[in-house]
Amino acid sequence: MLLARVEGNVTATRKHPSLNGWRLILCQPISAAGKPEGVPQVAIDPHGAGLHQRVLISSDGLAARKAVGNERSPARWMIVGLVDEKEAA
Amino acid sequence: MLLARVEGNVTATRKHPSLNGWRLILCQPISAAGKPEGVPQVAIDPHGAGLHQRVLISSDGLAARKAVGNERSPARWMIVGLVDEKEAA
Amino acid sequence: MLLARVEGNVTATRKHPSLNGWRLILCQPISAAGKPEGVPQVAIDPHGAGLHQRVLISSDGLAARKAVGNERSPARWMIVGLVDEKEAA
Amino acid sequence: MLLARVEGNVTATRKHPSLNGWRLILCQPISAAGKPEGVPQVAIDPHGAGLHQRVLISSDGLAARKAVGNERSPARWMIVGLVDEKEAA
Amino acid sequence: MLLARVEGNVTATRKHPSLNGWRLILCQPISAAGKPEGVPQVAIDPHGAGLHQRVLISSDGLAARKAVGNERSPARWMIVGLVDEKEAA
Repeated sequence: MLLARVEGNVTATRKHPSLNGWRLILCQPISAAGKPEGVPQVAIDPHGAGLHQRVLISSDGLAARKAVGNERSPARWMIVGLVDEKEAA
Repeated sequence: MLLARVEGNVTATRKHPSLNGWRLILCQPISAAGKPEGVPQVAIDPHGAGLHQRVLISSDGLAARKAVGNERSPARWMIVGLVDEKEAA
Repeated sequence: MLLARVEGNVTATRKHPSLNGWRLILCQPISAAGKPEGVPQVAIDPHGAGLHQRVLISSDGLAARKAVGNERSPARWMIVGLVDEKEAA
Repeated sequence: MLLARVEGNVTATRKHPSLNGWRLILCQPISAAGKPEGVPQVAIDPHGAGLHQRVLISSDGLAARKAVGNERSPARWMIVGLVDEKEAA
Repeated sequence: MLLARVEGNVTATRKHPSLNGWRLILCQPISAAGKPEGVPQVAIDPHGAGLHQRVLISSDGLAARKAVGNERSPARWMIVGLVDEKEAA
């Protein structure tokens, strides 16, 4: 899993049918200090994350396919947690 | 999934038979601002993306193999959505 | 597996249920000399690693899912060893 | 899949038995413009690629294991296409 | 697979039981010219690689789990070949 910050939505009218009805969120991986680290990922979001919120994202394709309920889905990254605002380091 | 921009086609007469008949698209992952991020990927394209179009690509090998209908296919990256031109951030 | 240094905890009240009860540790991959290398990962921790401790982390989703006892879990990275303080190079 | 350029062979007398008889090719991922991008990969080569030739490589371990005919093989990257010299962008 | 150079051992008294009895080797991926490329990986070593030796490493978790004989093992990277000293480019 990666710590990431929500950068916005991606809308795609034409897409794999398993992605219909899911919010697609552009997530920038970050360090503990909030510095961008590596390539932004587009994740499905079952949690309703807000813009600029810190989230946990996972690249586990098996779990993402189970979440969308479609074994043929290309979904791979998923928001799996919303980071609490005041966390102890 | 990654947000990416179509950079062109790749043509390979000699290739794995499961790739015959598929367009092979060179996709540059980008940030929300359109900046290149990380290594370009060659993806199969069931959607007919145009040059310089923004797309969503997925690295899910299982879904790609199901798309080409060949469990022995080395296909792994696939274009899974065409990003709408005017998206809300 | 990667050699990494513990950078802190991540707390997320709202998260995938399979992650409940697990410590989520932000781990910075490092070189033999301790230099940061690549993107920090959030790993589950069955070993009780301390802050700034050097650890081994693995990205094996299958093993992580077995550790949490939930085949639908998005857990993927796990702390799989605590590095001894005085190691022979 | 990645677009890559052949950088040379790697010879290893002592290796996993499933790799016996396969050419092991060091492949540098490149952009459309031929610029090196990311980490060089060692791939098995069923196509007979030449030095400095542009190729497509795939990281699909399942397909590579099927190619070598050994489910226990650690082979993961494979050359899956030879890029035509004069391609349309 | 990656071409890599052995940078040293990692010793971890407390670790996943499937790793007991295995040498854990810190491997720096390198280019054909020997330049470091990307993040160092900790690999299990069934071949007895020496310090600074060039090796082939694979990230295939399935093969690594079969090597250690434990389907629940988090082992993922493995040394799968020792590169010959005088190789033809």
